[in-house]
Amino acid sequence: MKLDRHATFRTLWRKLHAGSNPALGTNTMKKQELKIIPLGGCEEVGRNMTVFEYGNDIVILDMGIQFPEEDMLGINYVIPNTKYLRGKEKNIRGVIFSHGHLDHIGAAPILLEKLNNPTIIARPFTIQMIKHRQEDYSAGSSQKLKIIFIKKLEDKIKLGVFEISFFQVDHSVMDAVGIILKTPVATIIHPGDWMMEHGPINKQKIRYNHLSELKKPTILMLESIGSINTKKPVTEKEMIDNLKRVIDKAPGRTIIATFSSQVQRIKQIMEHASKKNKKVALDGFSMKMNIEIAKKLGYIKVRKDILIPINKISNYPDQKVIIMVTGAQGEEKAVLPRIVADNHRFIKIKKTDTIIFSSSVIPGHERTIQRLKDNLYRLSDNIIHSDIMDVHSSGHSNIEDIKNIIRQIRPTYFIPVYANHFLLKEAAKIAYQLGYKKDKVIVPDNGSVIKVDKEVKVLKDKVPTNYIFVDGSGVGDVGEIVLKDRQKLAEDGMFVIVAVVDRKTGQVRGSPDIISRGFIYLRESKELLGQTRRKTISIINNATGNGGGVNWTNVKEEVKSKIGQFLFSKTERRPIILPVIIEV
Amino acid sequence: MKLDRHATFRTLWRKLHAGSNPALGTNTMKKQELKIIPLGGCEEVGRNMTVFEYGNDIVILDMGIQFPEEDMLGINYVIPNTKYLRGKEKNIRGVIFSHGHLDHIGAAPILLEKLNNPTIIARPFTIQMIKHRQEDYSAGSSQKLKIIFIKKLEDKIKLGVFEISFFQVDHSVMDAVGIILKTPVATIIHPGDWMMEHGPINKQKIRYNHLSELKKPTILMLESIGSINTKKPVTEKEMIDNLKRVIDKAPGRTIIATFSSQVQRIKQIMEHASKKNKKVALDGFSMKMNIEIAKKLGYIKVRKDILIPINKISNYPDQKVIIMVTGAQGEEKAVLPRIVADNHRFIKIKKTDTIIFSSSVIPGHERTIQRLKDNLYRLSDNIIHSDIMDVHSSGHSNIEDIKNIIRQIRPTYFIPVYANHFLLKEAAKIAYQLGYKKDKVIVPDNGSVIKVDKEVKVLKDKVPTNYIFVDGSGVGDVGEIVLKDRQKLAEDGMFVIVAVVDRKTGQVRGSPDIISRGFIYLRESKELLGQTRRKTISIINNATGNGGGVNWTNVKEEVKSKIGQFLFSKTERRPIILPVIIEV
Repeated sequence: MKLDRHATFRTLWRKLHAGSNPALGTNTMKKQELKIIPLGGCEEVGRNMTVFEYGNDIVILDMGIQFPEEDMLGINYVIPNTKYLRGKEKNIRGVIFSHGHLDHIGAAPILLEKLNNPTIIARPFTIQMIKHRQEDYSAGSSQKLKIIFIKKLEDKIKLGVFEISFFQVDHSVMDAVGIILKTPVATIIHPGDWMMEHGPINKQKIRYNHLSELKKPTILMLESIGSINTKKPVTEKEMIDNLKRVIDKAPGRTIIATFSSQVQRIKQIMEHASKKNKKVALDGFSMKMNIEIAKKLGYIKVRKDILIPINKISNYPDQKVIIMVTGAQGEEKAVLPRIVADNHRFIKIKKTDTIIFSSSVIPGHERTIQRLKDNLYRLSDNIIHSDIMDVHSSGHSNIEDIKNIIRQIRPTYFIPVYANHFLLKEAAKIAYQLGYKKDKVIVPDNGSVIKVDKEVKVLKDKVPTNYIFVDGSGVGDVGEIVLKDRQKLAEDGMFVIVAVVDRKTGQVRGSPDIISRGFIYLRESKELLGQTRRKTISIINNATGNGGGVNWTNVKEEVKSKIGQFLFSKTERRPIILPVIIEV
Repeated sequence: MKLDRHATFRTLWRKLHAGSNPALGTNTMKKQELKIIPLGGCEEVGRNMTVFEYGNDIVILDMGIQFPEEDMLGINYVIPNTKYLRGKEKNIRGVIFSHGHLDHIGAAPILLEKLNNPTIIARPFTIQMIKHRQEDYSAGSSQKLKIIFIKKLEDKIKLGVFEISFFQVDHSVMDAVGIILKTPVATIIHPGDWMMEHGPINKQKIRYNHLSELKKPTILMLESIGSINTKKPVTEKEMIDNLKRVIDKAPGRTIIATFSSQVQRIKQIMEHASKKNKKVALDGFSMKMNIEIAKKLGYIKVRKDILIPINKISNYPDQKVIIMVTGAQGEEKAVLPRIVADNHRFIKIKKTDTIIFSSSVIPGHERTIQRLKDNLYRLSDNIIHSDIMDVHSSGHSNIEDIKNIIRQIRPTYFIPVYANHFLLKEAAKIAYQLGYKKDKVIVPDNGSVIKVDKEVKVLKDKVPTNYIFVDGSGVGDVGEIVLKDRQKLAEDGMFVIVAVVDRKTGQVRGSPDIISRGFIYLRESKELLGQTRRKTISIINNATGNGGGVNWTNVKEEVKSKIGQFLFSKTERRPIILPVIIEV
């Protein structure tokens, strides 16, 4: 009761003092300015989360994760740093999700809870993806979600001062949507992840000209990952036609590895299978889940007998079987790598199998994929990937498309986002080429505060964006120190020396114990270990021999440094040395 | 003296028993067969080392290293496994080096010594590179090298039964050379690394037709890394013209990052600087060394005043200064990354600097290079790389070039090598397209024994090719176990628990010590540590409480497993747990 009364008081107080709450900083309401803040999480500026703040109203776009970089050892993923929002939780009017990829929804379970469970807004497929992510994180937690469904593209939602509306975009996942945020000072247009589909199947080519009629000034925040991409895009039609051709000609089974979120593509293959009287088996947890969701939402309608369980594939002639699996990036636990490692219960590659990588190579996975291909080519003679035939179309655009969308929308301001900083700078050059002046183009970084009033400017001070690591069940508890230790351990391992010292004489009793991991193989290094033991005894005995009070910290430091030098002189390696001295 | 006599005896014995030495296997001499064995070291088949064996004569091509894969934690590099040559050292007639890149010469210091210091054969620049590598490894050791210089391309060298001759190839390092090995059963043609330069500067375009006239059957062993590359190659002329244009237009200094072995390119920039009256400063140990060698050999002749030391660059107007540096792959300790990290004594990036990446992206370095570019774009407005302009030409070929060279040489047999297995399979398809029958095309793997007599076949059994890791001063002493431990340590760190147990009572004395690295930050985890201590005490006390003999191995196992489970339940992490129990 006490708490409730307190809350009521606060609510009242806030209404009375709206716009001048000292806890919220200066009187932002009267200043009539919008702040746009791409928050950290990854190097692609704003990809994981963007904050829009006007006075006491905050709207958030997406809450995604980044997968760890090579040097983030043992880290599961990275989430955006929301320190800037601390104390402002009550101002958050809603979180809009542009589409259901993990780099846009993956951090929702952690961040929604942290930010007092604000309302979420998204289209049905995206909502289902968030719910699943939520349940994965903590069973039952999806029921706490406060949801506004975007049922039709014409829906309009008011979130505080923000008026939100939507527009259709093409992207490599169902229900991706572009967002319009009307504010008193400007209209933001944000397509989220997008591509220009030049050969769509069963739908019209999307045009964006209608967005040029929105109230000025307009600010186009554009995913610009294609800003140096000159490649002619593969159209959906070309790709699907190629896939169909390969399937029709396959001498045996067809195994297609693709991203689990490529629901549209999987759907088209199922429809083709239906026509050709073939069967489709899916394998991979996330792929099966996504298709299940799409079926429930009515997005996929296909004859019941087309989909068969993976353990039934051998009941059909090889030529009748299409298998769609995860693991095109070589992810160890995903399906395709398990098949190749002969580690799959129901699938063993045959010489006559046709294997298609209907996927791109995600940077950082090049070597793993090369190894996967090596092993596949050893098993089958029919491997097809994008280097050989257009069997994948990207979810992103190229330079020409970026030019096109800017020309169609004709925004007042252009803010390239969702890519590495250097790509945003290249996107800015595209806008300059189209005639934009330097003051109409803003290249932000994560944590940049873009202030919009009469003009659009980046403030000098950034908000915190240092990485928040998620490792196991810990959020943010692994920091630089733990990571540095992991790097050292990974490099040369560790070396524990345990010495028991006689309290009376100050001399080492017996022979010190040595435990080592990741340094050298102990059984093959007996001589080195013997020398190390003798050296340790002599260091400790010398240090403690004089009698009197012994500074054990100093003795340990000496063991650490001298044994470290000794081991380096013998091996040119620097394991972490951990001396344990026990007085008895 | 004893040793000498022994040696003489062995020589005599060998002469007497030539061809029927049981230690060398069966009577290989009489069987008149050639064995070709691409040895391991990396996934690119044969890239690091190839063995040619005919009877008692062995010739080796190259001794290179591979840089470690991501999962080879802490490993410096990988060398080929020469187990097959054990006991055959005396048969090695010579080691030919095709060119001076590390993946072809890097293992020479270790392997030459291991194989009783056989004669090496190479062109002058390559020999100098080997000598430097040798000195780096062990000072003075280059003097032990037994060297045959390839002075002219017309040189012919007899190595046992093998007659060796040479031909010119284009590659991205000076003095690269193609090798012809005449044997009684076949003529091997091996260009080593090669490209087709379609716009050479100051030289003729190379044609290979003369190789079609060699004695048949001929076997073309062809570096086929371009077997899926459809890109039109950038010619040397286009590239150099672009570089010159950028240099001439640069508003301030020009900083060019390139591979240190690109001596030809560096030379051409120096010549251009000379014409334009600009200065060139080099930085990067290997780059300076390579240019030094090229100058000494007379390959670079340039006015003395063109080259200036890096610490003198500020003595000249910015527009007069060209700086060529290493580090285009983002290698932490190389020059460009140090400049960008503001960690270079003499170079600080200015807004007006033009920075050129005259380099390609080596697979595995994508993310690092992206980060480097991000930071560079934050510092300067003039960054140029291959995505924007053709400022690099590759040292390798594409599909068309592979077709061309096969058409020119018209070998009897085609063996694609020097690339991942899947690329070799794709190269084989190119040969099939040109009309080669399946039995004339051989796709080997590392360790494959290609037997050549009346026909060319891959034997069923492979020779050992498991990785030999070099880590610090240790060669081959880090194996799977140590690597697995490093991976575990990198993932979740380690956790040492030290408990002192009273021998009489079997009870833990005081509170166990805990040392942890890379797991959690101890200072912020006091409660967890307290619980772990109490749990450890109770596990040990329960296990030892009954009195009588205690099986300490079992007690430790129990601590390990129960504390492991406990920590996982609290953190979802699995550090390596190391219990130390000391009885007093």
